[in-house]
Amino acid sequence: MRILVVNPNTTRSMTDKAVEAARAVAAAGTKIVAATARMGPASIEGHYDGALAVPGLLSEIAVAQGIDAAVIACFDDTGLDAARSLAHFPVVGLCESALVTAGFLARRFTVVTTLERSRVLLEDLTRRYGFGGRVRVRAADIPVLELEDPASGALSKLRRQIEIALVEDGAEAIVLGCAGMADLAHALQQQYGVPVIDGVSAAVKQAEALVAQRLTTSKRGSYVTPLAKTYEGALAEFSPIGR
Amino acid sequence: MRILVVNPNTTRSMTDKAVEAARAVAAAGTKIVAATARMGPASIEGHYDGALAVPGLLSEIAVAQGIDAAVIACFDDTGLDAARSLAHFPVVGLCESALVTAGFLARRFTVVTTLERSRVLLEDLTRRYGFGGRVRVRAADIPVLELEDPASGALSKLRRQIEIALVEDGAEAIVLGCAGMADLAHALQQQYGVPVIDGVSAAVKQAEALVAQRLTTSKRGSYVTPLAKTYEGALAEFSPIGR
Amino acid sequence: MRILVVNPNTTRSMTDKAVEAARAVAAAGTKIVAATARMGPASIEGHYDGALAVPGLLSEIAVAQGIDAAVIACFDDTGLDAARSLAHFPVVGLCESALVTAGFLARRFTVVTTLERSRVLLEDLTRRYGFGGRVRVRAADIPVLELEDPASGALSKLRRQIEIALVEDGAEAIVLGCAGMADLAHALQQQYGVPVIDGVSAAVKQAEALVAQRLTTSKRGSYVTPLAKTYEGALAEFSPIGR
Amino acid sequence: MRILVVNPNTTRSMTDKAVEAARAVAAAGTKIVAATARMGPASIEGHYDGALAVPGLLSEIAVAQGIDAAVIACFDDTGLDAARSLAHFPVVGLCESALVTAGFLARRFTVVTTLERSRVLLEDLTRRYGFGGRVRVRAADIPVLELEDPASGALSKLRRQIEIALVEDGAEAIVLGCAGMADLAHALQQQYGVPVIDGVSAAVKQAEALVAQRLTTSKRGSYVTPLAKTYEGALAEFSPIGR
Amino acid sequence: MRILVVNPNTTRSMTDKAVEAARAVAAAGTKIVAATARMGPASIEGHYDGALAVPGLLSEIAVAQGIDAAVIACFDDTGLDAARSLAHFPVVGLCESALVTAGFLARRFTVVTTLERSRVLLEDLTRRYGFGGRVRVRAADIPVLELEDPASGALSKLRRQIEIALVEDGAEAIVLGCAGMADLAHALQQQYGVPVIDGVSAAVKQAEALVAQRLTTSKRGSYVTPLAKTYEGALAEFSPIGR
Amino acid sequence: MRILVVNPNTTRSMTDKAVEAARAVAAAGTKIVAATARMGPASIEGHYDGALAVPGLLSEIAVAQGIDAAVIACFDDTGLDAARSLAHFPVVGLCESALVTAGFLARRFTVVTTLERSRVLLEDLTRRYGFGGRVRVRAADIPVLELEDPASGALSKLRRQIEIALVEDGAEAIVLGCAGMADLAHALQQQYGVPVIDGVSAAVKQAEALVAQRLTTSKRGSYVTPLAKTYEGALAEFSPIGR
Repeated sequence: MRILVVNPNTTRSMTDKAVEAARAVAAAGTKIVAATARMGPASIEGHYDGALAVPGLLSEIAVAQGIDAAVIACFDDTGLDAARSLAHFPVVGLCESALVTAGFLARRFTVVTTLERSRVLLEDLTRRYGFGGRVRVRAADIPVLELEDPASGALSKLRRQIEIALVEDGAEAIVLGCAGMADLAHALQQQYGVPVIDGVSAAVKQAEALVAQRLTTSKRGSYVTPLAKTYEGALAEFSPIGR
Repeated sequence: MRILVVNPNTTRSMTDKAVEAARAVAAAGTKIVAATARMGPASIEGHYDGALAVPGLLSEIAVAQGIDAAVIACFDDTGLDAARSLAHFPVVGLCESALVTAGFLARRFTVVTTLERSRVLLEDLTRRYGFGGRVRVRAADIPVLELEDPASGALSKLRRQIEIALVEDGAEAIVLGCAGMADLAHALQQQYGVPVIDGVSAAVKQAEALVAQRLTTSKRGSYVTPLAKTYEGALAEFSPIGR
Repeated sequence: MRILVVNPNTTRSMTDKAVEAARAVAAAGTKIVAATARMGPASIEGHYDGALAVPGLLSEIAVAQGIDAAVIACFDDTGLDAARSLAHFPVVGLCESALVTAGFLARRFTVVTTLERSRVLLEDLTRRYGFGGRVRVRAADIPVLELEDPASGALSKLRRQIEIALVEDGAEAIVLGCAGMADLAHALQQQYGVPVIDGVSAAVKQAEALVAQRLTTSKRGSYVTPLAKTYEGALAEFSPIGR
Repeated sequence: MRILVVNPNTTRSMTDKAVEAARAVAAAGTKIVAATARMGPASIEGHYDGALAVPGLLSEIAVAQGIDAAVIACFDDTGLDAARSLAHFPVVGLCESALVTAGFLARRFTVVTTLERSRVLLEDLTRRYGFGGRVRVRAADIPVLELEDPASGALSKLRRQIEIALVEDGAEAIVLGCAGMADLAHALQQQYGVPVIDGVSAAVKQAEALVAQRLTTSKRGSYVTPLAKTYEGALAEFSPIGR
Repeated sequence: MRILVVNPNTTRSMTDKAVEAARAVAAAGTKIVAATARMGPASIEGHYDGALAVPGLLSEIAVAQGIDAAVIACFDDTGLDAARSLAHFPVVGLCESALVTAGFLARRFTVVTTLERSRVLLEDLTRRYGFGGRVRVRAADIPVLELEDPASGALSKLRRQIEIALVEDGAEAIVLGCAGMADLAHALQQQYGVPVIDGVSAAVKQAEALVAQRLTTSKRGSYVTPLAKTYEGALAEFSPIGR
Repeated sequence: MRILVVNPNTTRSMTDKAVEAARAVAAAGTKIVAATARMGPASIEGHYDGALAVPGLLSEIAVAQGIDAAVIACFDDTGLDAARSLAHFPVVGLCESALVTAGFLARRFTVVTTLERSRVLLEDLTRRYGFGGRVRVRAADIPVLELEDPASGALSKLRRQIEIALVEDGAEAIVLGCAGMADLAHALQQQYGVPVIDGVSAAVKQAEALVAQRLTTSKRGSYVTPLAKTYEGALAEFSPIGR
């Protein structure tokens, strides 16, 4: 099967890191196909970036060929509902995938994300996915692109939040709350002796699981196919007419 | 004070209807300023339209001059979080405004919206705003643009759902769940003898209330100003750099 | 329009302070009319005072003439449900008004109230209004009437709790949880750079908003008009018969 | 031990019925002492009656001598928080007692109350007591005082709602949602073969249970003793000063 | 009446302590009958012990004669649903009983249990019983059997957690979260001046209350009698056939 | 990898059906190993059967050799917490797996189970897993072992409930709420045009996903390894000592 990993921001090095994590867990017969948004923000930090990353994401999903499922490689699950409405294959996000994965391993856990501006947004997502009473979200004060720079001190900030989570939250597992942390999961799991979940890996396995079960997004109700109608201006090409 | 009413879809007749409703409730010193999205879908029906209406909405908010507050004239509260992050004035949505308004008048009420594809989306919004246990959402099976056509039979479909809500839901009030229904509120309130809340009217009064109290969106935490960074491609102009 | 501001306790200086706050935000055409309970406690601190403040409140509402809406000037929303059942005009409380106002500006915020005995009572109110997951309540250990005395040190206790809220709760805004704090909101907003919401101001604007929309309490279900029946003893005058 | 059963309305025949139910379940050493409010409404139907029943209730609690615990004989748990703050003995309500009793016997159950105006009020109470997801509330359209009249047809209306509850709600037990139904519980339990819980009986047993365990209301936090302060006018006698 | 107190672990000294607590609160006409599981773990610490204590518990319930109600003397409410399905008399657990008892006395309280491994399990139980927002659970790091040894230092660990709960949780009451703490409740209540609830005492009184009201577990829905069917192997004797 | 599918009841034909479903979705390198409980009930219908199926389940997990993950092939997630505490490999249940799988495809869905006695039990499970507001549970009135008999009419009862769910619940997907329905999922999905999720298939894919990510149950907190202690009587062999 072919799984599309779409990075909804325009930074190719983050796509590369996500693809690497994806390939490390993909099953024998799975081919990971990468796409990077060609319009929108260079990283997604907060609601404004998030909203403006969606057209670039949808564009990559619309043009994808021969795909069995897609992963949106951003922990905010940016554009997930719109992508599910558009695509004829299942689409999974990192946050939902990581939370359900952690939920099989622990009753209480903590998500460690990058910036304070994403903390409440992720708390709201955890409630949406039904984990409100089981999860704490902590911000490590790391700008997303610093994760690309080994000299930035980002890793030690991340460790500090994990240590606080283990002591103060009674965290039984840790979820890494940014696609750019995918390469750190195994080392942290070794160090702390609790499950450390990376969203990219979790999402790829969920995508494979859905395809193997011949399941795809319900087209009844919430995610029904967009109605044909005119779109104006710079977004005219997104019109569902002719799709 | 000057309140911007932005229609996030590109249909000018819907802007006109919203502006009319806005002016009907505005205080003496309030000037209603209208804007219609110049890019994106002609109406917002479901997640895909909704996501692609956001750039057009943000564009109007970014270029607005001398504005004290903005109303997003769509009941889905499309792009509300992003708009709050962008604007230096308060921004209110129709759904949040209508729900809190109804909450002052009734303990249980029903939202009647257009299409089934919006029903669960609005149920999720009612939970986000804390009305989960107090509100039912019903869809009247009316395409949004039919509301512009008096001969479409839309009104009788709407009435039917209100009648069901009164009997089966024990609804103590009705919220009209689409900006395009703004002109129907008073007649329906007369007919059924319960409060009928229109989101545009409710939102304009909330916007005025915030301005009169010299309150604006908190720039600490969730809605902090977007970070300066590069945006690529067709959305390059949205980069916060230079804003 | 004429808005009645009723102080449900018998302390006239608190009525005066509330009326001052009310007039500062009222629209051009709004006349603020004041009333002070003529029976019951001198201040409302906890459940016992609260319950015994209700007859005095209802009495003022019953005798009011030519009123378009009423504000109950106590942050506990004392007697709100009974007042809504009695009145033929909309009635709003401070807590509900302040919470929904803050909700338009911030995703997480903190209410700072006077005494520990009111803390859980207000936490229960925040849940009733649907803000359970978004709000913390803190008590500043200030007896209500100390707020009338500038030399009491009340302000510095209040500041200390705000500072704790900003750091420990991640509060994006502050709600002042007592009508007697109405005069402090603007200075605190200046000092801390986050929205500081006063309940009296918020409630007056909600009352105006409802009147402008020609909306009043639903008389179907929860707030239906009291049934005619005999009342005995010292409360005989409250009988709905003849009202 | 001596348990005070206070009827917060002024109708003595309802007190008698409650006392009869209380004595039928009281333990050997328990003496049931009755009190009827001497001020306020003749029955409690909705928020207005409820609020104005509280002073009469508190008055009876304040003058009671040699009491070990009190039961408030109204299913709305009228004035319960204020009574707990006032009394130095435990105070229990019918709704809380009946819900926890039913909770030991069934996972899902239905409360059948009198009038529609009480339905949402009781739904809110069931949430306050943590039974939100386990309980349905149904109104049988019976004015409270009709329960005193065997020829009123009240019983057949009540039966009809029980039958609907068993079929449509999957009710595993029935709670009678009015003190005036206390005499009907056993016959209905026989007829329908499911537990039928009467609030008066349930409350008396809870009161006995607390006394036997030498437990009383916590005076730390929510229910701390009222502060000494002046009360004005017709309610001056309620001042905590000198209590 | 005869109330069976079943200790679902095999340690007879814990049964003795529970029986002593039970007798101390039982009404004049109540006879406490004891049973100790004859198969399974010596103490219940976590999910594994808990699951394997259930057959021993059910066995004692199945063979009991002339019993009016049963108490499961373990704070985890081990096997409660199964026991209710099996027995023709009401069955109550310690956790449910203690929580509802505390709920009549305080709005916020803290459960202090033994080991960290039981903390989340009890948090989940408090939610199941509807106390999610009112209760904190704290573990005192005491192995259950240390409670049998006065020299173990268990009491001082327990006191330390109570003191933290009073300060940090704003606890208005304390629930002792282990049957083995039954003998400590009165002394701790004296020391801290807040209600201290022991689960065994609470459960005995609830059992008595149900019997006095002639109520028993609903056999409609969740707790319907087990269907006749074959059981294999070491558990063959548990087959409902012939019961 | 080797995945153990344990049927916690003793009916081998149900094990065979589960294994068939498991093999149909397993990845190329996955070997499905089957086990059937050797003690306990022939089918699991309600709480009593469920509790007594746990020892047989744990026994199979304890003796399993060379296993990477286990699936408990019962939709009630019987014994899941105990199994997670015991095993050194991840353990997944059908209900949790099916719900999260459906959650990737639909916002609202319905679980159709066998008997009414399991309905509330499954509703409680859906809340535990965070799906309380998104899921309805319906019982089709089918004894579990009837699913083994094509002539029993079970399939038409199941279809009827699916059809009701699509119309009345607005179900966007269907979850089959019994391991014995595994063979029906694909045909029903074809017939109704919405996703139909089988728990066995879903659980096998979740087990594979965890192993591929090198994740296993957290041994910190809720699922920590059982403490060494004596077990008595018929369950003595379950003692963790020597494990």
